Amino acid sequence: MADSPKKIIIDTDPGIDDAMAIFLALQSPELEVLGLTTIFGNVYTTLSTKNALHLLEIAGRTDIPVAEGSHVTITNGTKLRVADFVHGNDGLGNQNFPPPNGKPIDQAAAVFLVEQANLYPGEVTLVALGPLTNIALLDSGFAKKIGKIIILGGAFFVNGNVNPAAEANIFGDPEAADMVFISGADVIVVGLNVTHQVVLTEADRDKLARSGGKFAKYLCQIMDIYFSYHKDSYEIKGVYLHDPATLIAAVDPSLFTYTEGVVRVQTTGISRGLTILYNKQKRFGEVSEWCDKPTVKVAITVDAPAVVKLVMDRLIDS
Amino acid sequence: MADSPKKIIIDTDPGIDDAMAIFLALQSPELEVLGLTTIFGNVYTTLSTKNALHLLEIAGRTDIPVAEGSHVTITNGTKLRVADFVHGNDGLGNQNFPPPNGKPIDQAAAVFLVEQANLYPGEVTLVALGPLTNIALLDSGFAKKIGKIIILGGAFFVNGNVNPAAEANIFGDPEAADMVFISGADVIVVGLNVTHQVVLTEADRDKLARSGGKFAKYLCQIMDIYFSYHKDSYEIKGVYLHDPATLIAAVDPSLFTYTEGVVRVQTTGISRGLTILYNKQKRFGEVSEWCDKPTVKVAITVDAPAVVKLVMDRLIDS
Repeated sequence: MADSPKKIIIDTDPGIDDAMAIFLALQSPELEVLGLTTIFGNVYTTLSTKNALHLLEIAGRTDIPVAEGSHVTITNGTKLRVADFVHGNDGLGNQNFPPPNGKPIDQAAAVFLVEQANLYPGEVTLVALGPLTNIALLDSGFAKKIGKIIILGGAFFVNGNVNPAAEANIFGDPEAADMVFISGADVIVVGLNVTHQVVLTEADRDKLARSGGKFAKYLCQIMDIYFSYHKDSYEIKGVYLHDPATLIAAVDPSLFTYTEGVVRVQTTGISRGLTILYNKQKRFGEVSEWCDKPTVKVAITVDAPAVVKLVMDRLIDS
Repeated sequence: MADSPKKIIIDTDPGIDDAMAIFLALQSPELEVLGLTTIFGNVYTTLSTKNALHLLEIAGRTDIPVAEGSHVTITNGTKLRVADFVHGNDGLGNQNFPPPNGKPIDQAAAVFLVEQANLYPGEVTLVALGPLTNIALLDSGFAKKIGKIIILGGAFFVNGNVNPAAEANIFGDPEAADMVFISGADVIVVGLNVTHQVVLTEADRDKLARSGGKFAKYLCQIMDIYFSYHKDSYEIKGVYLHDPATLIAAVDPSLFTYTEGVVRVQTTGISRGLTILYNKQKRFGEVSEWCDKPTVKVAITVDAPAVVKLVMDRLIDS
């Protein structure tokens, strides 16, 4: 039993680095991908679903179901922000791939998630790579049934990437994120404070391109816009591996260290989408919104060279 | 001219560590104290004024004027929070000192500040040790007339001390703080990220008590509650020198390093009072509330042993 692969579902908004994370999952013997659920984020949900189906077809893994998720935020009151300037209008580097042959399953993402959690109680790891709407839609029973939720989101004690306050996935649906963080589920959060340490360099990209690995070559085809965006925005010759690093936290959690505390999300004003971790360095005398709430594990350090190596090795060996 | 002392006004809510900062200022040949202005914070404004007068009487410096400041926040919409559990009901360690003989001047704090800034344009350093209401009340001309504003406030990339989001001075009047941070004045901000490194230990306190210095002995008399609060809240056997460290930034700015950026204050929701510094590590493509705003200097590192030594030396030599 100890050696049987970990069952995972990836909630995703592909997205260039989502594509990399999905391929990584398929290349990881430690993982069994039960399905993909889709969400708006890098692109709108309809396109996320198409891209998820397309990526599974590229991988020859059309056996894996895709369940379409929410098209609107949990309050349905927020104009969606998509990141076409990061990932291209198509979410996959403006490559004009033909539409997928397959279709999503009839179940909505939320229904699929509950079904799988009930089928394998306590055994499913949900890797959430986009806004957390699909998960926030679920009732409190889900938090107890799901094994673990590993979230790419937030910016702990660092600036965000939408604005100085907010990271994109949390900004995408702050109310949903707050609900998930205090849901009582076994949550690991991987934020920009960690993912900004995990950089794929131009040299790494060249190595992927030369490798002949199927996934490596596909990714090199779509990554130009992602590199341009990083050069323009951060003045770095490389790209942050947000989604792949988070996926690796499912493969080998020991490559990260974590602190445990209550995380709340600011939902109004100029810092809407900001994540605030109470780090317990002070015992507050006054009641606050952090009191008596369930804790989550927040990634604080990462063995970045080991994560990049694992990503490279698995993409090359494809 | 280079050796003439720096003219300062201290905006203060005494407060145990305010008392220490005021005494330090009076003991610093580098500084000439033009006056004290008062504000709510550690105590209500009326008591701040009494305590300011009392401290100047203790110091034998009744030549220095005290101008009373605002009794309410800039929007007059916020219930005041006073920190009697930190400084005592009287703000000075529950010592039941007799009321002061003196009185504040007839000018309100805001009027006094403008008058002094006009009298010595570009030469006055305002050291703000409480909520920023008095300063926010002033018109934009003041930002150009005042030489510099050194603010104790905020928590940059660390938890606050009122709750995980907010530091007490900014929490005391978030709208006022936001106005001051984007006023265009030459602002230095010293936040908890720095002041939590500047600790007066029990051994330091014992040394002060044994010294026979007038100010040293007075401060040791009032500091018990401040030590108890730190032990209960932070599990440390020492006290943070928030106000004294900020005063030292006026005496010797080179004991700190600074980063320059736009600081905004969250004014609504669970993180009301949070300070967010845009650190310019990313060039954002999207418009945000940090765009096209004046910058301030935020203290990032401090030579804490040197600050504590300076504080000790000057209090002992009194």
